[in-house]
Amino acid sequence: MGLAFDAKGLQAYMDEIFPQVAEDFAIDELSEAGITMRLKVAERHLRPGGTVSGPSMFSLADCTVYALVLSRLGQEALAVTTNCSLDFMRKPEAGRDIIAKGTLLKLGRSLAVGDVHMFSEGSDRLVARSTMTYSIPPKG
Amino acid sequence: MGLAFDAKGLQAYMDEIFPQVAEDFAIDELSEAGITMRLKVAERHLRPGGTVSGPSMFSLADCTVYALVLSRLGQEALAVTTNCSLDFMRKPEAGRDIIAKGTLLKLGRSLAVGDVHMFSEGSDRLVARSTMTYSIPPKG
Amino acid sequence: MGLAFDAKGLQAYMDEIFPQVAEDFAIDELSEAGITMRLKVAERHLRPGGTVSGPSMFSLADCTVYALVLSRLGQEALAVTTNCSLDFMRKPEAGRDIIAKGTLLKLGRSLAVGDVHMFSEGSDRLVARSTMTYSIPPKG
Amino acid sequence: MGLAFDAKGLQAYMDEIFPQVAEDFAIDELSEAGITMRLKVAERHLRPGGTVSGPSMFSLADCTVYALVLSRLGQEALAVTTNCSLDFMRKPEAGRDIIAKGTLLKLGRSLAVGDVHMFSEGSDRLVARSTMTYSIPPKG
Repeated sequence: MGLAFDAKGLQAYMDEIFPQVAEDFAIDELSEAGITMRLKVAERHLRPGGTVSGPSMFSLADCTVYALVLSRLGQEALAVTTNCSLDFMRKPEAGRDIIAKGTLLKLGRSLAVGDVHMFSEGSDRLVARSTMTYSIPPKG
Repeated sequence: MGLAFDAKGLQAYMDEIFPQVAEDFAIDELSEAGITMRLKVAERHLRPGGTVSGPSMFSLADCTVYALVLSRLGQEALAVTTNCSLDFMRKPEAGRDIIAKGTLLKLGRSLAVGDVHMFSEGSDRLVARSTMTYSIPPKG
Repeated sequence: MGLAFDAKGLQAYMDEIFPQVAEDFAIDELSEAGITMRLKVAERHLRPGGTVSGPSMFSLADCTVYALVLSRLGQEALAVTTNCSLDFMRKPEAGRDIIAKGTLLKLGRSLAVGDVHMFSEGSDRLVARSTMTYSIPPKG
Repeated sequence: MGLAFDAKGLQAYMDEIFPQVAEDFAIDELSEAGITMRLKVAERHLRPGGTVSGPSMFSLADCTVYALVLSRLGQEALAVTTNCSLDFMRKPEAGRDIIAKGTLLKLGRSLAVGDVHMFSEGSDRLVARSTMTYSIPPKG
């Protein structure tokens, strides 16, 4: 299954439908192999001590898998998160963006599953991983 | 193991250490049996369509289990989330707070596990559930 | 939604379709509120040291939620496990059956979600918990 | 951190401590990058319809991550599973072994986390994935 968007088109579409997240996330790369999504870390993503908060990591993982689903199904796609597992491995490094590498593990008629590995920019040490399942409602 | 805080004391302590979440969450009830935590739903918690966003639900679950751990271990407690599972069952009802019922399933020397059931206020239909594991670093 | 089976009828039906698990599991109780399923612990369920093995606990949780789904949808039901989270809290007590308390959190058109709490018989200390999602394929 | 065993040595050690699983699993490959573990599919691993059962897949994932932990920590290692997430993506192909590719995501002082991707032999389509967390008790 080919891509319904290129990176620029998908970014523009997501900025339009989710204006409130547009300033948080940027698509660095998109191909049939997967996606690279950046969390543009700002004050509001931090928790006491200065590390990126859990909810910000969840948001990033969720947004990454949603983008993967959209990239295949195109604009008319509806999809809602039904399940998430999330493991936090290491403290992110201070003052760095978080880079998420996402791959689609399954794209079925009613379920899509994506896997996300998250790193501090410039590091190859895993900060967190997540698997997200989206339910795709039947059309019409 | 008794409680190190009552509801009011725990709320005051969390407001102090997490001022940025103080306006989002309120402890409705705290006992040895568990905790009831409220997400005071506001515009910033919604996603397009007007339902409470996934990251807001994650925050609520995370904060609920953290509060359970603090309620037992007291102020000196350090604890970091290491694992989360989250199932989304139903769309929350518009314009209602989300009420989380949390129970501590385990409080060991190095790991604490809590379970959270989330509802729209006034409804007994489950919106989401989550299990969170916190790692408790050795003292000193 | 009412029950399509009583405990005895469901046990008979599961023994027929899953003869290989018939000797492992027994339904102690079934009502609209939930199910109580027993793992009849034998040598083959143990791992070195004499505690019940992880795969046996997984089997019990899986079978419990499958029974919940069957109890509602009846004989014609098809359902496959798509997702599982499992937390191990405490070592089961030696020489005791494991008792699983299962409740259905959601029964939608395409997804069913069940929650299982597992105890050593005669104890109220949680040994493990699991949430299982089953996908229900469209009919015909 | 180097390896405490080579593939042959680890296989021999696991056969000795877990004789009951020795006939189920074989280590195909072990390196610092990860492990390849084979489930030697036999009648007892199947469920009605002839596909590999969920508990067999759980066993394979659990055993794969346990082997990864042993390969680093050596014989004296104690480790117990505390958490598992498991996603089933596709039906395994009939009459084929299941091949698990495992990587260690984290090896901390008290927690180890491993990721497992499972395939039918000869296919690159993912059958299931799992993340397993092991708790490593303090020595002595």
